[in-house]
Amino acid sequence: MQNMQNKQIPDIVVGRLPSYLQMLKRLKTAGETNTSSKELGLKLEISAAQIRKDLSHFGEFGKQGTGYSINYLIECLEDILHVNKVWDMALVGVGFLGHAIANFQGFNHHGFQIKCIFDVDPSKIGQFVAGHIILDISELEKVIRKLNIQVAMITVDADNAQDVADKLVRAGIKSILNYAPVIIKVPSGIQIQYINPIIKLQHMTYYLK
Amino acid sequence: MQNMQNKQIPDIVVGRLPSYLQMLKRLKTAGETNTSSKELGLKLEISAAQIRKDLSHFGEFGKQGTGYSINYLIECLEDILHVNKVWDMALVGVGFLGHAIANFQGFNHHGFQIKCIFDVDPSKIGQFVAGHIILDISELEKVIRKLNIQVAMITVDADNAQDVADKLVRAGIKSILNYAPVIIKVPSGIQIQYINPIIKLQHMTYYLK
Repeated sequence: MQNMQNKQIPDIVVGRLPSYLQMLKRLKTAGETNTSSKELGLKLEISAAQIRKDLSHFGEFGKQGTGYSINYLIECLEDILHVNKVWDMALVGVGFLGHAIANFQGFNHHGFQIKCIFDVDPSKIGQFVAGHIILDISELEKVIRKLNIQVAMITVDADNAQDVADKLVRAGIKSILNYAPVIIKVPSGIQIQYINPIIKLQHMTYYLK
Repeated sequence: MQNMQNKQIPDIVVGRLPSYLQMLKRLKTAGETNTSSKELGLKLEISAAQIRKDLSHFGEFGKQGTGYSINYLIECLEDILHVNKVWDMALVGVGFLGHAIANFQGFNHHGFQIKCIFDVDPSKIGQFVAGHIILDISELEKVIRKLNIQVAMITVDADNAQDVADKLVRAGIKSILNYAPVIIKVPSGIQIQYINPIIKLQHMTYYLK
């Protein structure tokens, strides 16, 4: 399977795999042991053919008729997505949103843990949030390099997000999840994803009268 | 254009339109007056052909050679997505995340405004957040019906999200944006979208070593 990953897989396919993995984990939690592209498709509102085609980029995971072993497919998808390990993350910005993210329990079960938290506000630095001491953003580069962290989340306001992203990239961060409502420029080779509620809301109002 | 919308447009196409609209608005803010599918594609990392094909479902918006008038295309997309008006929204759950969402300034410029906020905690009810008085969730159905609100956001914890969604649906809500890390069941005809940071993070770790 490692070899198959050397092929260039369309990013849109990669982007659907985490949804498959999450649904498989939900089915496992519900006590299921086997599933099918049809069942996954119904639950995810994606066609069964699409799911089979997406997975076929990475190998053969199921059998005609018997479908997929949930445990095996979870293991394979975790390998493919590199979440068969736990990624340390940095969080920058401890406003209400940063507080909420710092306290979010969902990361730990899906391959992520917050390792360090930064803010610029002297009244916050040295305080604790979700068991982490809030560090001065001036220490960001040193700390992230020392801890060898590659993933970061930005929860500062829009005006400061680009500056924070630049600092993160200089510190060696490779993947940024940005909650600030602003487009961020990153050098080639650095990944950025956005949490964007407007996109989701406007998608739905299309169907409203 | 109204007539063309009667055709069944693939949901995945609809889901890309808000990104096009947001990028066009950014270009407008930057002082641009014209753009092309090539420029949009580069900025959004989508192929120009995909953008042209998506837009062609709804009509003819540009000219070979001269591209799109940004103002005109913004107007058309706002019509198509029904955000040429402002949608009132309800917000349920005033923890850190609810506080952050309530104070988020981005909604107003994109067709949305929070109109009422609910919580279950007696110590929060009657307090103000972002200029809104926090209402008792027991008043949810009455208030939402009276204000004729169709869009809601859920920022309660995972254990309570389904119950809140059921209440919202009974109150006449048609579109729900769910921040709680749990799948919610809604009746046919009700739309639900998720804010899911795990999906975005796992998408990126695919590319990490």
